[in-house]
Amino acid sequence: MTSNTPTDHSASAAPATTLQDIIAHAKEYGFVFPSSEIYDGLQAVYDYGQNGVELKNNLKSVWWKAMTQLHDEVVGIDASIFMHPLTWKASGHVDSFNDPMIDNRDSKKRYRADQLLEAKAEEYANAGDEARSQALLTEMGRLLGAEDLEGVRNLIIAEGIKDPVSGNANWTEVRQFNLMFSTQVGSLADDASTIYLRPETAQGIFVNFLNVQKTGRMRVPFGIAQIGKAFRNEIVARQFTFRMREFEQMEMQYFVRPGTEMDWYNKWKASRMAFHQAIGLPAERLKFHDHEKLAHYANAAVDIEYKFPFGFREMEGIHSRTDFDLKAHQELSKKKQQYFDNDVDPATGKPYGNYIPYVVETSVGADRLFLATLCNAFTRETVGEGDTQKERTYLKLHPALAPIKAAIFPLVRKDGLPEKAEQIMKSLRSEFRVITEERDAIGKRYTRQDLIGTPFCIAVDYQTLEDDTVTIRYRDTTEQIRVPISELKARIGHEVSMERILEKL
Amino acid sequence: MTSNTPTDHSASAAPATTLQDIIAHAKEYGFVFPSSEIYDGLQAVYDYGQNGVELKNNLKSVWWKAMTQLHDEVVGIDASIFMHPLTWKASGHVDSFNDPMIDNRDSKKRYRADQLLEAKAEEYANAGDEARSQALLTEMGRLLGAEDLEGVRNLIIAEGIKDPVSGNANWTEVRQFNLMFSTQVGSLADDASTIYLRPETAQGIFVNFLNVQKTGRMRVPFGIAQIGKAFRNEIVARQFTFRMREFEQMEMQYFVRPGTEMDWYNKWKASRMAFHQAIGLPAERLKFHDHEKLAHYANAAVDIEYKFPFGFREMEGIHSRTDFDLKAHQELSKKKQQYFDNDVDPATGKPYGNYIPYVVETSVGADRLFLATLCNAFTRETVGEGDTQKERTYLKLHPALAPIKAAIFPLVRKDGLPEKAEQIMKSLRSEFRVITEERDAIGKRYTRQDLIGTPFCIAVDYQTLEDDTVTIRYRDTTEQIRVPISELKARIGHEVSMERILEKL
Repeated sequence: MTSNTPTDHSASAAPATTLQDIIAHAKEYGFVFPSSEIYDGLQAVYDYGQNGVELKNNLKSVWWKAMTQLHDEVVGIDASIFMHPLTWKASGHVDSFNDPMIDNRDSKKRYRADQLLEAKAEEYANAGDEARSQALLTEMGRLLGAEDLEGVRNLIIAEGIKDPVSGNANWTEVRQFNLMFSTQVGSLADDASTIYLRPETAQGIFVNFLNVQKTGRMRVPFGIAQIGKAFRNEIVARQFTFRMREFEQMEMQYFVRPGTEMDWYNKWKASRMAFHQAIGLPAERLKFHDHEKLAHYANAAVDIEYKFPFGFREMEGIHSRTDFDLKAHQELSKKKQQYFDNDVDPATGKPYGNYIPYVVETSVGADRLFLATLCNAFTRETVGEGDTQKERTYLKLHPALAPIKAAIFPLVRKDGLPEKAEQIMKSLRSEFRVITEERDAIGKRYTRQDLIGTPFCIAVDYQTLEDDTVTIRYRDTTEQIRVPISELKARIGHEVSMERILEKL
Repeated sequence: MTSNTPTDHSASAAPATTLQDIIAHAKEYGFVFPSSEIYDGLQAVYDYGQNGVELKNNLKSVWWKAMTQLHDEVVGIDASIFMHPLTWKASGHVDSFNDPMIDNRDSKKRYRADQLLEAKAEEYANAGDEARSQALLTEMGRLLGAEDLEGVRNLIIAEGIKDPVSGNANWTEVRQFNLMFSTQVGSLADDASTIYLRPETAQGIFVNFLNVQKTGRMRVPFGIAQIGKAFRNEIVARQFTFRMREFEQMEMQYFVRPGTEMDWYNKWKASRMAFHQAIGLPAERLKFHDHEKLAHYANAAVDIEYKFPFGFREMEGIHSRTDFDLKAHQELSKKKQQYFDNDVDPATGKPYGNYIPYVVETSVGADRLFLATLCNAFTRETVGEGDTQKERTYLKLHPALAPIKAAIFPLVRKDGLPEKAEQIMKSLRSEFRVITEERDAIGKRYTRQDLIGTPFCIAVDYQTLEDDTVTIRYRDTTEQIRVPISELKARIGHEVSMERILEKL
């Protein structure tokens, strides 16, 4: 039985899957809807439908278990979205979480200045002039680093970049635009204060570092994991759930002794890559991408990219963040963010003593992992031969991730078969998610479950009434076998259990 | 073995538990921290710590499974926090989600006008004048209903209500204050629009009603369940996690044929009460409280109240919301929110046809359920007799809800016992959350696990090395039994499984 082996994409790649295929499938089968669609939607915001929420919850759950169950030195927290505004002063977001923007005076359209230049550089590269492409990117990096916004504007004009809408280069100055959403908390006009919707979940971990370390008696190295929403007022939000204004992060900050961070960085790189493969993403669709330019807080950084229909793009980031964040919070809050390390330093024969730990971060976008999983599972195959040849579409999801684990079909809507199906469902549903379906011909019912990734379909027929056996039909192979009802719980329960994924890690 | 029977509070009630006991315990043992505490916190916002997040996740998970696994006609969704602003116009929140507020000119303190009057009415009631108390509440209700804010102010003055801070009645006018948080989305000054942080999750379900019904081929009656954050700019936020500005709701909207709503209302009332008892809240600490005044959208409403240390308070609301919401969205969006019912009406012999379904809602505060569970689990008992008498504190959590399921203790830190403990942990951790602990005397280790509610402690001693047996110590009884290591997974796995709760429902 092969239903839970990792997806082999190379074998089943019929027509190439486009992002439009995924968006249409996600909408039609209850995975992702545009937000507030009856009011014509809200740009760059999406709602997860009845199947999407189950898939996403399963992904969140397996990540959470992989972090906090498989590592007894990693614990979770759930910090609030609202945080004290000084948090974002310390982290640098108030002062520098900006995008450089430029407007065209005629079209009134606004663009990210860096993206205009990057597009130009890509043009050079595509035309074979790699040197000119690199030179442009380097110059842009220099200007942005020096915050020379006038220089950026001059570069755009010098490169002859035009607004595709107006067709001209009648550009405004370049301005910085902060991506944080703000709101007012408190009811009195004079005591109301501006707070931000967190633009990342990481700071919720940093401000709780000592609370967790002390109340949990954690010893370095240890990690704190968190899943939660973050918000960014993206200027150009696009590519479906890949870049949204409201999104969900799964982050883990691992606190280590300074000087050991590269060992942990490399360990977590390997561990996170293994995770993605364990949930079914194939090695050939994953790759590491080292950051060329490091953020101000990092001394090493790499992305795990997945090959989406629109190319290899970041799904997860692994960053060695040094002691930048804890130090910044210590300075602003005047509260020591130190750890006392009892372990003996072999060089001195004495305990390492007090220090601010270094941090290795793993940060994966839950919505991106969801999108990658959905893209990867989407399978179109040609089955049969000659006149009976037809195309079959199904979602080859790992059974532990599938929204519905089993669907039970009474062959006909009479003679006690629906009641028997109902009875079997009730015997299974406290263990996993199982439904019954009586409508349509049985072939159509199989097809429908294929389209939402249900790994097992169970047919209840006249023989069932005689000998308490049913057929199980496997999604990926369409094979059917006859088994006693009494075996269903153990047989399916084993296949759909998260343990199957965790055991591989 | 009694470790997983519902908590019997009457038996173990030593000194009465206060909210302060709970807040202190929650902080000290990693359940709940004040938000952004290093910056002196953010009022009415809290973070869940390493044990709190596990307890809360377990509560969310069992609610979710009880809804979507035990009812095959109930499915979930996860709508975004950001919604189209017209949503809140339709729901009535833009125009009337207000609190009437009044300021004292001298103290500059702000109060909710209705709460000032309610406190006065309570004063009358406590003094035995129930008639005057009721009359005051009735008059207040009339004035607020008529939006006669000047009348409310006059009533406050006529009742001689004074500001406790200034000691006088130098009151301003009464004004309405909207409780929704707003923010600006979009980057251009001229296209930026005001959006709200949702003040309730219910509307995310209503705007997706047809998407779910059509793509999931749902037939009335059916339900849509959702867990998610909501935000209210509460003027007076208090009582720990009971009333927060950022909070989490677990809501289910059940769509029914008009005229059948009271049957479903009563069914869900019973079902939800059974749920709370199944997770361990005792019947005598739960009660129904019918709403005397119904909200404008409801034709029946009841709260399930839990007896917190500060009295019986709402934990969950069950509301028959009629077709108010779907109708309002239909009117504003101009998109029909109808369902075609194929079932045959016995009165006419024809299908019921098109209608806007009525809705029965169950809405529980995840943070309130968490607080109730923590309060209920908090147990202080006097054990032993005479000189050896001492007090013992532990969290009597249902094993399926406990943050850590088992803690493994090597008796000593040598002779291979730690390695054996590690090996046992690794054999269990893909199934449930298990840790090892070597520090401190073993008695202290038991105590520490008691305080966070770990149901099982496993001691690894010299005999373990000989015959591969360990002792299991049960949290509630402190009984110890010796069992083979090979039995641990099945024995503990069974006790800590969510299935144990779901089977009772």
